[in-house]
Amino acid sequence: MKIRVGILGATGAVGQRFVQLLDGHPWFEVVALSASSRSAGLPYSQACHWLLDAPMPAWARDMPVLEATPEAPFNCSLVFSALPGDLASPVEERFAAAGYLVCSNASAHRLDPDVPLIIPEVNGEHLALIETQRRGRKWPGFIVTSANCSTTHLTLALKPLHAAFGLVQVYVVTMQAISGAGYPGIASLDILGNVVPYVGGEEEKMERETLKLLGQLQDGQVRHAEITVSAQCNRVPVRDGHTECVSIRFRKRATAEEIQRAWQGFRAEPQALGLPSAPVHPILVRDENDRPQPKYDLNTEKGMATTVGRLRPCPLFDFKFVLLGHNTIRGAAGGSILNGELLVAKGWVPRT
Amino acid sequence: MKIRVGILGATGAVGQRFVQLLDGHPWFEVVALSASSRSAGLPYSQACHWLLDAPMPAWARDMPVLEATPEAPFNCSLVFSALPGDLASPVEERFAAAGYLVCSNASAHRLDPDVPLIIPEVNGEHLALIETQRRGRKWPGFIVTSANCSTTHLTLALKPLHAAFGLVQVYVVTMQAISGAGYPGIASLDILGNVVPYVGGEEEKMERETLKLLGQLQDGQVRHAEITVSAQCNRVPVRDGHTECVSIRFRKRATAEEIQRAWQGFRAEPQALGLPSAPVHPILVRDENDRPQPKYDLNTEKGMATTVGRLRPCPLFDFKFVLLGHNTIRGAAGGSILNGELLVAKGWVPRT
Amino acid sequence: MKIRVGILGATGAVGQRFVQLLDGHPWFEVVALSASSRSAGLPYSQACHWLLDAPMPAWARDMPVLEATPEAPFNCSLVFSALPGDLASPVEERFAAAGYLVCSNASAHRLDPDVPLIIPEVNGEHLALIETQRRGRKWPGFIVTSANCSTTHLTLALKPLHAAFGLVQVYVVTMQAISGAGYPGIASLDILGNVVPYVGGEEEKMERETLKLLGQLQDGQVRHAEITVSAQCNRVPVRDGHTECVSIRFRKRATAEEIQRAWQGFRAEPQALGLPSAPVHPILVRDENDRPQPKYDLNTEKGMATTVGRLRPCPLFDFKFVLLGHNTIRGAAGGSILNGELLVAKGWVPRT
Amino acid sequence: MKIRVGILGATGAVGQRFVQLLDGHPWFEVVALSASSRSAGLPYSQACHWLLDAPMPAWARDMPVLEATPEAPFNCSLVFSALPGDLASPVEERFAAAGYLVCSNASAHRLDPDVPLIIPEVNGEHLALIETQRRGRKWPGFIVTSANCSTTHLTLALKPLHAAFGLVQVYVVTMQAISGAGYPGIASLDILGNVVPYVGGEEEKMERETLKLLGQLQDGQVRHAEITVSAQCNRVPVRDGHTECVSIRFRKRATAEEIQRAWQGFRAEPQALGLPSAPVHPILVRDENDRPQPKYDLNTEKGMATTVGRLRPCPLFDFKFVLLGHNTIRGAAGGSILNGELLVAKGWVPRT
Repeated sequence: MKIRVGILGATGAVGQRFVQLLDGHPWFEVVALSASSRSAGLPYSQACHWLLDAPMPAWARDMPVLEATPEAPFNCSLVFSALPGDLASPVEERFAAAGYLVCSNASAHRLDPDVPLIIPEVNGEHLALIETQRRGRKWPGFIVTSANCSTTHLTLALKPLHAAFGLVQVYVVTMQAISGAGYPGIASLDILGNVVPYVGGEEEKMERETLKLLGQLQDGQVRHAEITVSAQCNRVPVRDGHTECVSIRFRKRATAEEIQRAWQGFRAEPQALGLPSAPVHPILVRDENDRPQPKYDLNTEKGMATTVGRLRPCPLFDFKFVLLGHNTIRGAAGGSILNGELLVAKGWVPRT
Repeated sequence: MKIRVGILGATGAVGQRFVQLLDGHPWFEVVALSASSRSAGLPYSQACHWLLDAPMPAWARDMPVLEATPEAPFNCSLVFSALPGDLASPVEERFAAAGYLVCSNASAHRLDPDVPLIIPEVNGEHLALIETQRRGRKWPGFIVTSANCSTTHLTLALKPLHAAFGLVQVYVVTMQAISGAGYPGIASLDILGNVVPYVGGEEEKMERETLKLLGQLQDGQVRHAEITVSAQCNRVPVRDGHTECVSIRFRKRATAEEIQRAWQGFRAEPQALGLPSAPVHPILVRDENDRPQPKYDLNTEKGMATTVGRLRPCPLFDFKFVLLGHNTIRGAAGGSILNGELLVAKGWVPRT
Repeated sequence: MKIRVGILGATGAVGQRFVQLLDGHPWFEVVALSASSRSAGLPYSQACHWLLDAPMPAWARDMPVLEATPEAPFNCSLVFSALPGDLASPVEERFAAAGYLVCSNASAHRLDPDVPLIIPEVNGEHLALIETQRRGRKWPGFIVTSANCSTTHLTLALKPLHAAFGLVQVYVVTMQAISGAGYPGIASLDILGNVVPYVGGEEEKMERETLKLLGQLQDGQVRHAEITVSAQCNRVPVRDGHTECVSIRFRKRATAEEIQRAWQGFRAEPQALGLPSAPVHPILVRDENDRPQPKYDLNTEKGMATTVGRLRPCPLFDFKFVLLGHNTIRGAAGGSILNGELLVAKGWVPRT
Repeated sequence: MKIRVGILGATGAVGQRFVQLLDGHPWFEVVALSASSRSAGLPYSQACHWLLDAPMPAWARDMPVLEATPEAPFNCSLVFSALPGDLASPVEERFAAAGYLVCSNASAHRLDPDVPLIIPEVNGEHLALIETQRRGRKWPGFIVTSANCSTTHLTLALKPLHAAFGLVQVYVVTMQAISGAGYPGIASLDILGNVVPYVGGEEEKMERETLKLLGQLQDGQVRHAEITVSAQCNRVPVRDGHTECVSIRFRKRATAEEIQRAWQGFRAEPQALGLPSAPVHPILVRDENDRPQPKYDLNTEKGMATTVGRLRPCPLFDFKFVLLGHNTIRGAAGGSILNGELLVAKGWVPRT
């Protein structure tokens, strides 16, 4: 018997990915789709300008859209949130206060000291912050967040290296896909044949979230990692997939072979637990001198892995390399779903 | 009376830019166009698949293409070279040995210790290497080179900062236009909606040429600057214009205001001499948080300037910023033509 | 002394083209820019997200934006209208009723029987409808309209053929640029690497406006041409320039040579009058088998001409060919400006 | 036990699709890959610049590439040919003469009177031409061809309408994807942000092949259909998927509802026989006013169906509509594989 789940903000670009990725999910069954009050009552197929190339699942088409308020008949306890930035903060809090378990992809609460910011392969143990959160906020429910899209793939690639060699510096320049801006998002006149060297708020997110994700849990708190991150973020005319050029400096000496081995051998809790959305190989390593590329490497492991390549010494840091990841699958809806699966496997979700 | 000039490799992408930019030039008159022996004898309009959006100049259409050999009737002493990499080295040498003054855009001789690698605003005084070259090689002519496209714009933006604050470290990630790969260059299937995180040889060029360009002339030699440069180069689906994300560290302390002032006030020899192709402002500074962009900033100063923007502190270096420049105008043909103009103004070209 | 003019809807995509094309105009001087009440009072540079690659003219930057109402201090009698569809109808009427001469690019009044729909090379004599309009509406001012972008270039290409051979059938399929949808217009997620086989209202406009444009003036009315037009309209990922595949059937027999000659020799009133924005050759003919193309042929005659090519027999009609034109220059702002120039030359605009 | 098959021209763009689509095929097992003599002996992974986004199948990686000559050890009797145009004619003939059954995607033999040009849903009965071919050419093997990519989807959409209402006229304008030009195919500088209104030979193919495909088998000959087709073909910056704007005139009266029903109810021999690559619905009908689009409709039925939409009356013909199909799946390799499956089901391929 499956666990009933709802989606907050189901009609937006990330909300649609939740619908698509939860279609036929072995553990979860979507029983509630919510959007703004404007859409409430409409069947999902009418409330939603479907953007994905695979068709809208049949079960979703006629599901009536609920208003995003805990008073609506969600009929489930776990909800995934794809709410837009400004709304996410108060609405998610109301849901948690009403007893819902909120798996959020929004940035609103990611840096709250009592809210877990989780990539299951990186820092699943931070879920212990839920206790802190409940104690402090007196909520029967809770909020767990997944990371920013660019940060998620960067941190996945860094995790085994940090564990093995101790990161001290990370320099990253991104080339991000248009789907990361939502819908309608970036106007075609602004991006066709162009580069926009600015993604609002993205550099700050990368420079901060990475430290919390790689931080240590101590006495019910996360001590942020002592790493300096510098990010420059750009938008390029690519549909899906963020490419990142990275340079890193370690505390310990590392060789290229050791780094490759750390990446290739990387397995973590989601793999050990067999979470349904977990990639077999969280990190894929390419040997060609011109990879990874969105065209080729976006959909390996169903968009849930990070692909790395072009590892080579850096004249200014220790090494430089290129990484690529799917921004709306692992970098958004898929990341939150994996968080939900981890919550279930760890016993945080009542099986009713 | 104008100075007669020829173009070596006139049918390729850069060669065509030479033809376009020399159309109506106040000092130069093109009297010879050369290409491979396969095209020799054909009128230029037949030998050339014209790629530029402005029409082919009328005078060029019927000009018969010469073979690229000093024995052909060039009827001029100054030649601009847009020869492809593998051919440039021997052919340019033969022309210099035969007495031609070669202004080359090819990479073949850029790092030769006795060949000037020149950006007129940066290091015009390095032309003195011509004496070294002639002494050593016993050539009646000479070879002067212009820099790689990405390097040219990077170095232009760095020059006034290096002069004022002493650069020690430069980190750069490029997003380069498809026109930089020549024609047919990169296949549409490889780049439409994609990023290719590799441009053959480009990172090495940026890491080395920059040091020679910013180096000091001493005893007929160029002492390379003691700066460490790390480059990562990418191809993106943009027609013209290389965007570069840069971080820099100085020897001296500098404020953002001082840097902006150094850029805005930057004028150099080409401006003082009034060279016809020299931009009034070699460096343009944009204040918006999402500029420069190829769409808007490519053609300011007729493609001969570098546009910078987004200057802000860098957590890992002193400052980071974004720059943009036209890769086939200032970054290729236009840069060589400006070199030619400097040679004329400095008396290296006989006025006959 | 120049004629003072205003622009209604100056901040939109077409409004910006008016600003750009009227910069340095020999007859007109822009003294008023209007937009929605939300922007009123702001300097134009703040009210406007500038989209064009050439910089905003200096005189426009600080010009305070007026509200688009005849009560505002326009201080001119001729206004160009780039108002959006729904607003254009009532606002333009209010301006005409208040005595303004309105040169509109909006579709609102194009098919009104008493409103001239004008392409100066095609049907300048239809300006006589102004008398009908004034008599019927009792307006001291008037409204004159320019045609839809796709229709303008189609009709320009058809005019000399209709005059010579009598058109009876026109079949056209368009591939239209994204700039035709305004700003923000079409979302990048909808068009990057895609074709959208639908442009709202465009097919109807092409099928109807063409008949009025090619119609005969009789007794103060325009008798629409007896031609059947069928249009299919598509949006493609091109920035500027509409490409159209056309087939035509004539009343009389015509050879390919006669058609080419009719196109090449085509000159009309704007050329005879020397209107400042009139192209020397309204129709340009290309001989290559793969032209016209937006990349090459968009900016010939400063975007005011139509380029045709690939003329060949059609198995179903008499001939087929391809045409290309600039959709926001001749197809929008430039077309209206040429109408304004014709009004001046014909004495409809008081010279004060 | 599977039927062993080979691929001629396996390293090109269409050849790669054959490899991909035959991976895990229930009836066929690829035992031989051939390419030019230059690649002979190399493992396929080295001989081939893999272009598809799904990874190269493991079994293909190490398979040594054979020279495309019947003397090479193909060890199979059925071969699929993706040979380039100029080579296809003599090489395919040599294979057929040596006893091979050749399922070709090349255009070389499509219009030969004794060579079946087959779309299984359209004219499977034309396979009877094989007898004529064998009698005339004295070959132990034979050649069967699949149609041009644009023609395939056009003809699929037309077949049930022709059967029901009798086509007399077809007008079509295509907007074709870059993958149709092979690799390296069209240079990025030629197509990024551009339209090329010419695809060499394509219009002639559409105007002729359609008539043979819709023709009647009579006395061992195909009598071409008496329909007039006019085609205009364009290349647009889309990766995969040809969009076509079509107008049609029938002998009999038809309503929009009857046409929709003819499309929706269309099933043919491949569906009845349960051929593994046959789509359940060969023709999919969309109701939205802006569909089909490559972005959404390309991969329905695994790229083996044609999607139609925007059916509406045409002022010049009876109806107009838009169709879309995958050019390298059903329009190339997938179409030939379906032909191979039909040959097997009809007993033309020995099961050894």
